[in-house]
Amino acid sequence: KINSERLWNTLHETCEWGAEHRYGENPTDTGMARLTLNDDDARVRRWFAAEVQKLGCSLSVDQMGNMFARQSGQLNSAAPMIAMGSHLDTQPRGGRYDGILGVMAALEILRTMKESGFQTNYDVGVVNWTNEEGARFPKSMCSSGVWAGAIPIQKAWELRDIHDPSVTLRSELERHGYLGDIACSSDPATGYPLGAHFELHIEQGPILPENNRSIGVVRGAQGYRWLTMTVHGKDAHTGTTPFSARQDPLLASSRMIAASHDIAKRHDALASTGIIRVPLNASTNTVSSQVTFTLDIRHPQDSVVHAVQDECLKAFEGIASQDGKGVSFDWTLDTDSPAVKFDDNCVASIQAAADQLVGRKKSMLLTSGAGHDTVYTSKHCPSAMIFVPCRDGVSHHPTEYCSPQDCALGTQALLEAVVHYDQF
Amino acid sequence: KINSERLWNTLHETCEWGAEHRYGENPTDTGMARLTLNDDDARVRRWFAAEVQKLGCSLSVDQMGNMFARQSGQLNSAAPMIAMGSHLDTQPRGGRYDGILGVMAALEILRTMKESGFQTNYDVGVVNWTNEEGARFPKSMCSSGVWAGAIPIQKAWELRDIHDPSVTLRSELERHGYLGDIACSSDPATGYPLGAHFELHIEQGPILPENNRSIGVVRGAQGYRWLTMTVHGKDAHTGTTPFSARQDPLLASSRMIAASHDIAKRHDALASTGIIRVPLNASTNTVSSQVTFTLDIRHPQDSVVHAVQDECLKAFEGIASQDGKGVSFDWTLDTDSPAVKFDDNCVASIQAAADQLVGRKKSMLLTSGAGHDTVYTSKHCPSAMIFVPCRDGVSHHPTEYCSPQDCALGTQALLEAVVHYDQF
Ligand SMILES: NC(=O)NCCC(=O)O
Ligand SMILES: NC(=O)NCCC(=O)O
Repeated sequence: KINSERLWNTLHETCEWGAEHRYGENPTDTGMARLTLNDDDARVRRWFAAEVQKLGCSLSVDQMGNMFARQSGQLNSAAPMIAMGSHLDTQPRGGRYDGILGVMAALEILRTMKESGFQTNYDVGVVNWTNEEGARFPKSMCSSGVWAGAIPIQKAWELRDIHDPSVTLRSELERHGYLGDIACSSDPATGYPLGAHFELHIEQGPILPENNRSIGVVRGAQGYRWLTMTVHGKDAHTGTTPFSARQDPLLASSRMIAASHDIAKRHDALASTGIIRVPLNASTNTVSSQVTFTLDIRHPQDSVVHAVQDECLKAFEGIASQDGKGVSFDWTLDTDSPAVKFDDNCVASIQAAADQLVGRKKSMLLTSGAGHDTVYTSKHCPSAMIFVPCRDGVSHHPTEYCSPQDCALGTQALLEAVVHYDQF
Repeated sequence: KINSERLWNTLHETCEWGAEHRYGENPTDTGMARLTLNDDDARVRRWFAAEVQKLGCSLSVDQMGNMFARQSGQLNSAAPMIAMGSHLDTQPRGGRYDGILGVMAALEILRTMKESGFQTNYDVGVVNWTNEEGARFPKSMCSSGVWAGAIPIQKAWELRDIHDPSVTLRSELERHGYLGDIACSSDPATGYPLGAHFELHIEQGPILPENNRSIGVVRGAQGYRWLTMTVHGKDAHTGTTPFSARQDPLLASSRMIAASHDIAKRHDALASTGIIRVPLNASTNTVSSQVTFTLDIRHPQDSVVHAVQDECLKAFEGIASQDGKGVSFDWTLDTDSPAVKFDDNCVASIQAAADQLVGRKKSMLLTSGAGHDTVYTSKHCPSAMIFVPCRDGVSHHPTEYCSPQDCALGTQALLEAVVHYDQF
């Protein structure tokens, strides 16, 4: 049984490094701004390295700074370790649980095993994946993506700090001594293969709290595609230009955003626009010349994601010629993340843990709405995830919160699942 | 008969001061960036002062830097002068005709009268109104507004350069020696009253070219109200938050923009959104917490402007609760410019000039879609405007263009209208 107080204290003590955005009076009433490879991220990495070494783990660092801590199993097998992984970096206005809980839970499990003299059959360990958030160096799930062969390392190394283009991800790895010598790869010859990957994470959505469940057994992740639309019109004076003479890209974009929502809703899918931009010199009495907006389409089935995209583009064509003299548009595909089904055996181990700890009335099968490092690991080793509820489904926000009870329960479930899988 | 070559050459020679944004190979293929009271605006003002003094005009400058050049009439009456006014300042990416044509035409008329020994009955003259564009110091039709008592002079003086808040309109007036000693007012005791105000201006819209007319007899200006809407929602992850749990202000804003267009269209009015802003840290996979957008509603009748606004706000309330958990919104009124009907006699003088020069098939009655200095003067003296076509209705753009023929025709019409009114 894990030590829930130690887990809670360790999590919040290490959140001293990067605490920001105070919102209340309790010492832990702050969010986090521990951006990938800033000085606070380097500090928590050095602390993490020291802690796992104190537990007798071997520590390996690959060329993306991914940290692999490994505890030997009693069989002394050469098989790759069963990993518990997540990330220690945060959003610029992030919280104390997203990613951090998964790594701290894994550490707590290693501490519990050592304390109680328990040894798994096979090697087990912890992974701290670099730059999951993609907030400072703009590519999310960046280093699990390189590990899985989905992102070329050169591209990842060359990512620039979004506020200071003179700094690259690679230059920051070098500055902090985290450019390791192992290849960032699952290749047994040069890299660091894993036998399985389990990740505990906050749900970041409202489904568990709304259904009054405390453990989500995550059987996969939905597919998503990110498009950037650019709509071209023509500047015109809003007072002197009749509607019939206009090419108004903002009016067209507005109709497109509304249409994409309605189309997605009909398919029980999601379509969302997070960013819309008109030129900086836009003015109240000028029809803009150009508008860009993002479109994020998601569904557990790729075929539905594609159907929604196709229907949206078709609707957009109609909208483009609907008002005045019409507008034109083009688009780019920025991210294509197909749906992923997690490994049946890993899911079964998590389900077994959940059954034992809370029963079927307090757990539920879920599909992750968001991408996670586990989406990438699942392409090269059996993988699955555990979700615990976070307050109001809020994440990527300073007030993100997961109760001590839920942190402990998720950690216990992770322990049981790993032990179950090790025995399997 | 005015000298069309001299008019054209003078206009383009003085556009050397502030020429910017080259788009073609001819010497005059540039736009303008002669922002209010920058060094180029000061240069053209000194040139203008010298030219009118050469013609024997008296020159007065008021406390907003408005320049009044006055030619005595043969009756030596003490009546206030008949003014031909417009502005010499431009947008930052403006053209060579908006405002400039009106002042250069007036000057050409004084030159023609002097050359041919023609004298009006009453005094006539030219006004160069300061900061019509409101592009550098953000208040459009600024100094005709002060003159008309609609804008307090203290507020106008304190306007700050939008790029350098250490500079005020007043400090720039002082720097260039254009803080005159006459009150900026139509009060005969302290200010500079006008007997009438005629303004020649490019149409800035497509109605004249589309109807193949070369003179617009402008009988008034439509009313307009500028609103800024702020829609409040809640940040949420686009992948993990079901539609039903969202408060999405960008989706709501999109529906509002589309609705406002459709409502205005039903009323034969205009409603336009030029600016929409999401927070700078918006991201593709986050529903924004807040969106602001502008709404510019126009119609020749104030009652219709108000009806459109009321219908929009009512529709917005429905939209606010339409999706997910709903959003809230509030709004501010940034500008309220009621519709204006110009003086019947001034309009009749312009119509007489148009009849004589081009006949009824080539002229038409118009309502100005945009605000102009004449909107303010009309509150204190008989006023009206002449429009000439500009290519494709494009203005506030470097490629803004009015042909030498149309510049000359508009100037001749201004001359005839002023003489007609003087005789009346
Ligand atoms: N967990 C998370 O926010 N991942 C980023 C990619 C996504 O939007 O799903
Ligand atoms: N002429 C002009 O652009 N005036 C500014 C105010 C308006 O938008 O009508």
